[in-house]
Amino acid sequence: MRIALLGGTGALGGGLALRWGRDSQHDLVIGSRDPERAREAAGTYEAILDGQGVERSIPGFENGMAAERGDVVVLAVSSDHLSEVLGDVGPRLPSDAIVVTPAVDMESGENRMTYAPPTQGSVAALVREEIPARNPVVGAFHTLPADRLQSLEESLDMHTLVFGDDEAAIERVRSLAGEINGLETLLAGPLENAPAVESLTPLLLTLGQQNNTPGLGLKLTD
Amino acid sequence: MRIALLGGTGALGGGLALRWGRDSQHDLVIGSRDPERAREAAGTYEAILDGQGVERSIPGFENGMAAERGDVVVLAVSSDHLSEVLGDVGPRLPSDAIVVTPAVDMESGENRMTYAPPTQGSVAALVREEIPARNPVVGAFHTLPADRLQSLEESLDMHTLVFGDDEAAIERVRSLAGEINGLETLLAGPLENAPAVESLTPLLLTLGQQNNTPGLGLKLTD
Repeated sequence: MRIALLGGTGALGGGLALRWGRDSQHDLVIGSRDPERAREAAGTYEAILDGQGVERSIPGFENGMAAERGDVVVLAVSSDHLSEVLGDVGPRLPSDAIVVTPAVDMESGENRMTYAPPTQGSVAALVREEIPARNPVVGAFHTLPADRLQSLEESLDMHTLVFGDDEAAIERVRSLAGEINGLETLLAGPLENAPAVESLTPLLLTLGQQNNTPGLGLKLTD
Repeated sequence: MRIALLGGTGALGGGLALRWGRDSQHDLVIGSRDPERAREAAGTYEAILDGQGVERSIPGFENGMAAERGDVVVLAVSSDHLSEVLGDVGPRLPSDAIVVTPAVDMESGENRMTYAPPTQGSVAALVREEIPARNPVVGAFHTLPADRLQSLEESLDMHTLVFGDDEAAIERVRSLAGEINGLETLLAGPLENAPAVESLTPLLLTLGQQNNTPGLGLKLTD
């Protein structure tokens, strides 16, 4: 399977690239608005993985070209740029590509971050509205601490919550997520449940600020 | 210190009574709308604790009388009865009593539970509105799985998120919570952050339903 990481030059996209690069066999493609920056980041990831004894060839492209190459397309772009990226990428998605949204809209307050979803009700609903109906949308990776994800020496011990309306697509994303060492998945229900999951990101950031514990991950214990 | 558990006949109140009964030295008082039911539940807790080798005398009262006896008053009542209980209890709170709110308003949907806060914006804001301004309000214990809390053989390994506007009160509640074996606390900011914390309860219930894993607890890993 080929995973296209749009916004793959950022911390979350880069972290996922490094983790999948080390822990899975899937082909990876890095996308960015600037293809030169995509290629540069991809080269950095190749070098880091090489340092871990993993030989990887990771190409970089402009986001739209990266999306054309993805069986699974992860929208690891800042929500500020999401609509712009989706306008470019939507028509170029392969007809059966799964679109994964980890993005969140939030506002910064004095003592806390707050969830500030777009008018559609959630970032996932915005994504659903802007891409072709044939492409399933799955939410995942919202609660991953990007900085820890990027440091391969950091061991993860956390869950990611996965939601969506297409069962086969959800299972595919859960399987991909579960290949990352230390990452487990839990089903979080249908796409309409997106606000409950997306709002965890500002909460985790608030907890990190308030307790001076940046990089908190979410774990559900039973 | 004396902890008054209003709604102490329910699963959360009972669980907290058993845990503090076993793990701390604080005096406990059980409140209920029906004083007879309060005494009955308190007797059951005494017997369970006796079975653990812990001798405890736990009195039971009608909620208002229990509140009069509390240095810390935990509102472990269902949100349906909260306004009624607060109307009764508010004027009878000791002038320096700390009021702790673990309650959440939610609605049950087909595939999920959703957060459905009162018009004040959160249950904590409702509590703040209905009790005297001199009594600090602290939110805590929203994410504790009540059934596991009640089973003393279950070991906990989880966080509870604590929020409020009065630092001394927050520290007192954190200290009490931290005396329960396996329970750690994290600061979640000011009272206005209540919706982010209260909405975790329906999310945890949704995750339990969706994954057939009831009784999930929240743990933040760093």
